[in-house]
Amino acid sequence: MRAPVALERSYLLLNHGPVTLVTSAHGGRRNVMAASWAMPLDFDPPKVAVVIDKATLTRELVEASGEFVLNIPTRAQAAQVVAVGSASGRDVDKFARWPLATAAAREVAAPLLEGCAAWLECRVIAEPGNQQRYDLFLAEVVAAHADPRLFSENRWHFPDDDRRTLHYVAGGQFFQTGDALSVA
Amino acid sequence: MRAPVALERSYLLLNHGPVTLVTSAHGGRRNVMAASWAMPLDFDPPKVAVVIDKATLTRELVEASGEFVLNIPTRAQAAQVVAVGSASGRDVDKFARWPLATAAAREVAAPLLEGCAAWLECRVIAEPGNQQRYDLFLAEVVAAHADPRLFSENRWHFPDDDRRTLHYVAGGQFFQTGDALSVA
Repeated sequence: MRAPVALERSYLLLNHGPVTLVTSAHGGRRNVMAASWAMPLDFDPPKVAVVIDKATLTRELVEASGEFVLNIPTRAQAAQVVAVGSASGRDVDKFARWPLATAAAREVAAPLLEGCAAWLECRVIAEPGNQQRYDLFLAEVVAAHADPRLFSENRWHFPDDDRRTLHYVAGGQFFQTGDALSVA
Repeated sequence: MRAPVALERSYLLLNHGPVTLVTSAHGGRRNVMAASWAMPLDFDPPKVAVVIDKATLTRELVEASGEFVLNIPTRAQAAQVVAVGSASGRDVDKFARWPLATAAAREVAAPLLEGCAAWLECRVIAEPGNQQRYDLFLAEVVAAHADPRLFSENRWHFPDDDRRTLHYVAGGQFFQTGDALSVA
């Protein structure tokens, strides 16, 4: 399920530091990789920063298309995150190898991964120095969506553990997003 | 309590996307602010990226000193995170107003906040374009420490809810770092 999220609130989807899956597409090829190193960069217009290594097929597709999607997976997808994060799109067509259902994005060619909690469609802000020296990509968020069962009225509310978002540590280890707390 | 963390493993302290407190010092002044928009940027030598708004005193102290510390607070400190994140160091000496105990860092002048889960001492990599256009600071991690009751042998292990790390959403709302899971 997918409902639009107002652009100026889209930082809320990424603000708590969840792991992301980066989808990309160009010239008939597409790919998906895992990225923990992603964060909001600005509120309005919303921007994000994400690290995309030079060795990856994602890097080639993102540089060629100037677009990507940050998909925010749930705990139910943890094994998929590790699987697509452990293989290279240069060696295997990940969409053929794993049952990764996709839907069309609204503003970019990169696909949305079904079953995720939220999606940020992004257009790269060309900063070749950052890209070359640090593998760092800055981008504007041009559309945002969330599963309304998990995020609505600008708030996350996780109905069960399987649909919590994930925080990656290393070596196949995650934390799930835990209990909420509020400070007045 | 504080024990050293190997520099090449220091990304593990930040990889799961916790909120941070940025401490800074220069010319007899010091400050602390909250920052959710911080992430690892490289493994070895370790680097980080963090967004520091132009309006903040922290920005002035970080630009003048070229240094800061990313302190990673625990749930027990959530009210402090909101307090120091809601006031400006231009208006109030936060260290005088709140009971923020500090210790000397090893490599930088900015202080370490007692009671945190982990600390990353950072030296700015001058990238004036990023700083000016995006409020984005890149830095090398030059020393790292963690409370060994919470992080040891390169792993987080939270003994109780009060000592879990935090993920910020907005408006005083956090998630605590939740249960661990592992995918083989």
